[in-house]
Amino acid sequence: MSERNLTLLTDYYEFTMSNGYYVLGRKDQRAAFDVFYRENPSKAGFSIFGGLQQIIDFLLDMHFTDEDIDYLRSFNAFDEGFLSYLRDFKFTGDVYSFPEGTVMSPGEPIITVVAPIIEAQLVETFILNQFNHQSNIVTKTNRIVRAAKGRPVVEFGCRRAQNADAAIYGARAAMIGGAVGTSTVLAGQIFGMPVAGTHAHSWIMSFSTEEEAFRAYADMYPDNCTFLIDTYDVLRSGAPNAIKVAKEYLEPKGKRLKAVRLDSGDLSWLSKEVRKLLDEADMTDCKIMATNALDEWKITEMLDRGAQIDSFGVGDNLITASPTPTFGGVYKLAAMEEEGRWVPKIKISATQEKITNPGFKKVYRVYNEQGFAHADLITCDDETPDLSRDYKAVAPKEPWRRIEYHNCTIKEIRKQYIKNGELIEKMPTIPEIAAYVKTQMENEIWDEEKRFSNPHEHYVDFSPKYYKMKLELMEKFEEE
Amino acid sequence: MSERNLTLLTDYYEFTMSNGYYVLGRKDQRAAFDVFYRENPSKAGFSIFGGLQQIIDFLLDMHFTDEDIDYLRSFNAFDEGFLSYLRDFKFTGDVYSFPEGTVMSPGEPIITVVAPIIEAQLVETFILNQFNHQSNIVTKTNRIVRAAKGRPVVEFGCRRAQNADAAIYGARAAMIGGAVGTSTVLAGQIFGMPVAGTHAHSWIMSFSTEEEAFRAYADMYPDNCTFLIDTYDVLRSGAPNAIKVAKEYLEPKGKRLKAVRLDSGDLSWLSKEVRKLLDEADMTDCKIMATNALDEWKITEMLDRGAQIDSFGVGDNLITASPTPTFGGVYKLAAMEEEGRWVPKIKISATQEKITNPGFKKVYRVYNEQGFAHADLITCDDETPDLSRDYKAVAPKEPWRRIEYHNCTIKEIRKQYIKNGELIEKMPTIPEIAAYVKTQMENEIWDEEKRFSNPHEHYVDFSPKYYKMKLELMEKFEEE
Repeated sequence: MSERNLTLLTDYYEFTMSNGYYVLGRKDQRAAFDVFYRENPSKAGFSIFGGLQQIIDFLLDMHFTDEDIDYLRSFNAFDEGFLSYLRDFKFTGDVYSFPEGTVMSPGEPIITVVAPIIEAQLVETFILNQFNHQSNIVTKTNRIVRAAKGRPVVEFGCRRAQNADAAIYGARAAMIGGAVGTSTVLAGQIFGMPVAGTHAHSWIMSFSTEEEAFRAYADMYPDNCTFLIDTYDVLRSGAPNAIKVAKEYLEPKGKRLKAVRLDSGDLSWLSKEVRKLLDEADMTDCKIMATNALDEWKITEMLDRGAQIDSFGVGDNLITASPTPTFGGVYKLAAMEEEGRWVPKIKISATQEKITNPGFKKVYRVYNEQGFAHADLITCDDETPDLSRDYKAVAPKEPWRRIEYHNCTIKEIRKQYIKNGELIEKMPTIPEIAAYVKTQMENEIWDEEKRFSNPHEHYVDFSPKYYKMKLELMEKFEEE
Repeated sequence: MSERNLTLLTDYYEFTMSNGYYVLGRKDQRAAFDVFYRENPSKAGFSIFGGLQQIIDFLLDMHFTDEDIDYLRSFNAFDEGFLSYLRDFKFTGDVYSFPEGTVMSPGEPIITVVAPIIEAQLVETFILNQFNHQSNIVTKTNRIVRAAKGRPVVEFGCRRAQNADAAIYGARAAMIGGAVGTSTVLAGQIFGMPVAGTHAHSWIMSFSTEEEAFRAYADMYPDNCTFLIDTYDVLRSGAPNAIKVAKEYLEPKGKRLKAVRLDSGDLSWLSKEVRKLLDEADMTDCKIMATNALDEWKITEMLDRGAQIDSFGVGDNLITASPTPTFGGVYKLAAMEEEGRWVPKIKISATQEKITNPGFKKVYRVYNEQGFAHADLITCDDETPDLSRDYKAVAPKEPWRRIEYHNCTIKEIRKQYIKNGELIEKMPTIPEIAAYVKTQMENEIWDEEKRFSNPHEHYVDFSPKYYKMKLELMEKFEEE
């Protein structure tokens, strides 16, 4: 992404407002904006945060070229002083964030930007674009990976991705979510990720016979040989030809057929029939890969039916997070500095879920004695909850309930990544982020939250002090 | 897109296969591949083709850098001769295509690439990526625009797009589909498209009162003033404050409040209540704009209920084509040159929709006397159907029916765009493509095909000669 300047990948209204702050002499008034979201896609129990690396890269590099300034001037809407200001623009603020790959829930401040309001406003759109896209794909991929129950999942979505970046950064997000590789060569080149693929139907069709096509492929790639066996007819043609070529061309050279791939038909049934044919031919080591519009529900159903599938290639539904292609992250003002002190800000709405969580906050993850994440806890910025004894929290949607944490420990989730415009935290590699996701899934997140149907939604509680502050702001608004 | 080299935005298997063709000495064997799709999203009556400009740009520019070659070498899978070949790669083939913006249907060859097989294989993934993404967004936007029944629709999706390119090229596709503008500044800069936007809730919240925020905005942009009126409470606060500021600050200067925007709550009801308040204040010229997770179904429902909305801003569902984010375009071998003559190729499948249409084809649009598109007709490459008398076509899914065209005229849909690797056709501008879409909608496409619920699906017929050729190939396959 560094090759292109994406500073103008921004909604026009960010400029209208920023120009306004500039002209009013308010550009240096500090503001705090939270990135959060309101609902987990697919009514899931949680989501997983992605895209932080690209957000940080953008903030550190953000700048306007002369061409950009000329273009903005052409609207005849902006003050010349504002345009000069943009020419020398540098992001000078602070950024606090969940680490990338962290399990997250609706209402939590995942990222907080604290900066002069003019800067904080101009960074909104890009941050949301990355947060929404990559979080969606990380979350979706992780669901598919969990459905595959240990079987490798490869990301095959380039041709169905929503343009080039969706393929590139979608592949990155897929690796974080647990995919073992991608088919997209450019993503492999940019991020140093494993790249995979064998051949298409066109390879088979370009030869006179399927057998000839398999033989040519086996000659070429004897050590890494996977045959696509559904070009004509899996059981009458594809599987017998694959076995024949394995026996007659690979095995005499001491090589084994690595896998066969199924891309159409009833994958569960075909996989069982193909497994029998392979086993009867003493090819128990030959794996079966399945592709064709898969997702977490189809994979679960196939494996529940005893499908003999060893690995999955997933394209369409992974790379677009279908059927939930939008992730509803928003960026809302949480506090402003007024006459030297921070004032919490709240957005009221007739739609209750749209009421924001005002002010500076801390977010803690609360662990039980087994190390499982019992809940997340939002507190005021100056609180350090004492969990050495029982702690009473508030469930914001059911404030009448008594939420008690017994024998729990807590850990603050967020870190400061950028201070005065400079990076102050080491950024993890993609494998490190993927390992972090995997650890949380295996050791910290309840099975009840990982279910695809009617999961338990991860608790997000408030400290009593924070709840009281929010309630007072809402009541004050109602009075006015 | 020209700034970046996207040649490696390609599935790895394209290289595995191309290397194979190279090593086998078959690289110059000519092949014809068709781009087609199998199903209209949302069970629509048709779709609209987008992305041709970017496909052409890519093919004319496609090249491998030394860095790309080194990266490919690192797989230890490719022949050095193949890598040298790539170093000097240039696309030398021919490209036939529907013009961008043409109404299209499943099974039709929208684009055909005729080239040495090694080239034709390497261009597959990028072509599909652009075809699928932009066609999906053009089609979706056009549905939303038709639902709005003449009211302007602005594309507001940048923050919910699947990464940067989905926002940029999605905005382009939206304009082709009929949007009047985009909020994405970078898309406006790249394509010279109209850009729009006013202010967010944060503008309002950053002031002590809503009235003060409106006043500041009105001072700044008196000629283009739209207020977002749902930050606190539309009817108790937003609308009265908007009217007050219009009366006290704009009208004394001879300016009018251009519009108010609603972004939450019951948009139908609120729009009617706000309309009343505006009209009572002699502000009948003040428009009402609505935003908030809109799509073609919600807009239709709101307008059917008499919502007083004059324009729509559409984000999420437009920019991701939710709930159908994948468009299933595929790229299949249709013919190969064997010993100097072209041989049609067919892909058989247990799934009937996956059987391809073999060979070189022409596609005609058949018009009735009123100029409406009655059907599309696929013929062999050497046919020019004579419609001066009644013509009998074949309906491929119901071959027993007698399809007759009475008093119809025909026009070939496809043009040759690239010949021997060179552009030979003038490419239209975005407004020209958008106008072409609009003309087809108004003058050529039946209302029955434009319905959102259970529309008539546009007919795609075969010429008797073409049907016979396909049938013979299928029977020959069954015999073997």
